[in-house]
Amino acid sequence: VVRSINPRTNENFGPEFLDTTKEEVDSIILRSKTAFSTWSSASADQRASVLHAVAAAIDSASAELVEIADLETGLGSPRLPGEVARTTFQIRQFSEALRAGKFVSPTIDDAVEGAPPSGHPQLVRTFQALGVVVVFGANNFPFAFSVLGGDTASALAAGCTVIAKAHPSHPQTSTKVFEIASKEFAAHGYQDVLTLIHGLEAGTQVLKSPDVSAGAFTGSRNGGRALFDIAVSRKNPIPFYGELGSVNPVVALQSGLGDTTAFANAYLDSLLLGNGQFCTNPSLLFVPSESDVSGVIQEQISLRSSTPFLSPGTKNLHDLNRDRLTQVLGATPAMGKLGSEIGLFTAPAVITISAEQAMEHSDAYQIECFGPTGIVVTYKDMSQLLLLLAKLDGALTGSIFSTADDVDALSVIKTLQLKVGRISWNAWPTGVAVSVGQHHGGPYPASTSSIHTSVGLHAIERFLRPVAFQGFPSELLERVQ
Amino acid sequence: VVRSINPRTNENFGPEFLDTTKEEVDSIILRSKTAFSTWSSASADQRASVLHAVAAAIDSASAELVEIADLETGLGSPRLPGEVARTTFQIRQFSEALRAGKFVSPTIDDAVEGAPPSGHPQLVRTFQALGVVVVFGANNFPFAFSVLGGDTASALAAGCTVIAKAHPSHPQTSTKVFEIASKEFAAHGYQDVLTLIHGLEAGTQVLKSPDVSAGAFTGSRNGGRALFDIAVSRKNPIPFYGELGSVNPVVALQSGLGDTTAFANAYLDSLLLGNGQFCTNPSLLFVPSESDVSGVIQEQISLRSSTPFLSPGTKNLHDLNRDRLTQVLGATPAMGKLGSEIGLFTAPAVITISAEQAMEHSDAYQIECFGPTGIVVTYKDMSQLLLLLAKLDGALTGSIFSTADDVDALSVIKTLQLKVGRISWNAWPTGVAVSVGQHHGGPYPASTSSIHTSVGLHAIERFLRPVAFQGFPSELLERVQ
Repeated sequence: VVRSINPRTNENFGPEFLDTTKEEVDSIILRSKTAFSTWSSASADQRASVLHAVAAAIDSASAELVEIADLETGLGSPRLPGEVARTTFQIRQFSEALRAGKFVSPTIDDAVEGAPPSGHPQLVRTFQALGVVVVFGANNFPFAFSVLGGDTASALAAGCTVIAKAHPSHPQTSTKVFEIASKEFAAHGYQDVLTLIHGLEAGTQVLKSPDVSAGAFTGSRNGGRALFDIAVSRKNPIPFYGELGSVNPVVALQSGLGDTTAFANAYLDSLLLGNGQFCTNPSLLFVPSESDVSGVIQEQISLRSSTPFLSPGTKNLHDLNRDRLTQVLGATPAMGKLGSEIGLFTAPAVITISAEQAMEHSDAYQIECFGPTGIVVTYKDMSQLLLLLAKLDGALTGSIFSTADDVDALSVIKTLQLKVGRISWNAWPTGVAVSVGQHHGGPYPASTSSIHTSVGLHAIERFLRPVAFQGFPSELLERVQ
Repeated sequence: VVRSINPRTNENFGPEFLDTTKEEVDSIILRSKTAFSTWSSASADQRASVLHAVAAAIDSASAELVEIADLETGLGSPRLPGEVARTTFQIRQFSEALRAGKFVSPTIDDAVEGAPPSGHPQLVRTFQALGVVVVFGANNFPFAFSVLGGDTASALAAGCTVIAKAHPSHPQTSTKVFEIASKEFAAHGYQDVLTLIHGLEAGTQVLKSPDVSAGAFTGSRNGGRALFDIAVSRKNPIPFYGELGSVNPVVALQSGLGDTTAFANAYLDSLLLGNGQFCTNPSLLFVPSESDVSGVIQEQISLRSSTPFLSPGTKNLHDLNRDRLTQVLGATPAMGKLGSEIGLFTAPAVITISAEQAMEHSDAYQIECFGPTGIVVTYKDMSQLLLLLAKLDGALTGSIFSTADDVDALSVIKTLQLKVGRISWNAWPTGVAVSVGQHHGGPYPASTSSIHTSVGLHAIERFLRPVAFQGFPSELLERVQ
């Protein structure tokens, strides 16, 4: 059983949501499997039209959805209306890609006369949707990474059906989005293309089912790893695309700092956006010790207030991790202000340590502290900096602040390239463009499948299995694709 | 310790190969990691030139290599010279793809003015080689899926370095190929781009190393699964691309049989090619019971003789599985002739069962019996056939024999599409074209990563991790790719 909690008051409200029972889950899997036959064999154009209609229905309900989500998440405006727009933009982008034949069109590899290895029959490389996919919705994106978020949109676009597990921190939002979408699917003659379950046990039951072909997840490292372990330990292992959060490095060279007060405030803006609850949060900032910027950051944070945490669990975990961090590092955080005495608030903080301290605790200082807490590392020279960067865990994204003619920039970039999935130039990491050139994923522990992205058009590739047709007559080929 | 065995005599010959020690493995990993820095940052053109030179060196040594491999594998001519040619063809194909900028060229996603979600900064999606890759060579392809086979070629083309584990059934061939290739790499200034280890323990040590970023494997289901389990259970899981063999369905509709004697012999040619030791072997043949084809196959196999097994282990496992199969199915195999009284020979066999028997033992009859043994299932009607096909495990490849106007063909194809990675039209499954349209992989247990191929140009995608560069000045972008 789960009930919504208003983060601004830490009070329950609204109906109780029961965990989906074992029998209900069995029935949902069966229905999703049946729906897969129809949905996966619909043409790309047909799927595109339905997805367009679903996006339009969500847009029409935006105001209502934002109101529910705001009560459940405290994320407010402009964030929530923006997130609904992002969600439908994502769906439309996949839908337009389908119409343009991108990603799903076959490659025709004409026959070559002669003996092998150069000679070969005609091969037509087509794509087959994987099957039923289970999507575990995220805590911090009630729309864009939840029931109808990027994982779901890309899987549906590929021709998979989706069983979405609602995140317990926003059951009403999840249910409402699901209802709007399923009504629209049904209106177009597609039942059970999207189904919804509640409860972790229901989620693991689906993930273990032999009728389920892939999993996708956005959330914590521990949660994601536990689900990944289930997916790969099955009798028939299945792909599990987990985006497990990240400790993202931002490197400021002296040449890239500019006005240190402006820099400090831009850093705090990014760090504290959405109460720091972003997987792209600039968790680790490396600044030159010769600059006054770390001192300025410590001054500036005192002017900042926190916004609410998404859920009591998120707040508790953050507070625990921050305590561990400060204890292990033996550092005193510079504190901001508590946003409110009631509700799920914790004052923001920045923990400043030297490169030597970071070196001494090279694992401990990379604990993800999901929320309004940043670590600033002051380095004396490039050799210290590069040594620290080389010891970083995999991350989703990294940034470098520098001038283009700074001779040190290249070695920083080359080190970051081995560690992260996206590198930004003189820009903060929060804000992930939904675009074909995007890559949102990184070496483990950032994600469980670093060669795939969960944002942008390439996300669809995770759910498409190539099938080569060898020597088929063209009239038959047309009928099987 | 391992020594070569001549399959034609079952006698040892040549030097002893010691297992690579723990300390040697540590040193090899370190050297491979060091080599990765240089090799991965070489330009695609540079890598292409070196790979071209390696292919030429292997071609020059073809006669000598074939002689060694023939003694170790008994595969003879034309198979072995053909396999050397296939191996160098593969390397050249990747090398030419690199020169043409395929797979490794960045996608430039121009900035779009305006607010998100439509507005975004410039994103350049580049590719980063994964790192050090361990390749477990196959038993049945001493060249094309071994030390310098498709997995190695695709990983090297991507910019990874490779630690190859020699298969114990052909240590001399593996060592010779390795020596020729490393000499050529060294001549071009690249040390340790390819390294060689012997022994299973050494292989698992490499797979467990935090400095190793991916594994690739061609071999048995049990062996592959054990290695997959190691790769995904690491503290930092890594991708493991295992091609685990396959029980491949071939469906003959009445319309596709033609002359049944010709059909039976074409089937036996494919089944017994290389003593049946192909992952694309037509293991399961479905024929209509109304036809006399199953009887003709039983007659024709009596005229066929076996060729040698690759190793005592392969023969023993085959014989054991065939005994299990005949026992469980309660069927008497139709036998061919023993190729020789000495050496590693077993007479070929075809086990014919009815659709009802197959239904009753739907797991048992799908045991892979790697070698010169086929199962022929006679079906009465389409509903029997489709029911059996729907219960098949994942496979690498399937075939259908039919006329284009046969109304039953489509439902067979649509069922096969869900089960296999390649479907051939009126053609036997053995012989896998090395081409851009190829897909050699299938749902588990055929492979551990069904969306990736181990043959053809797309194999390189397994070793490339996208990295998006956001908002970078062009002069800097040129220097980091």
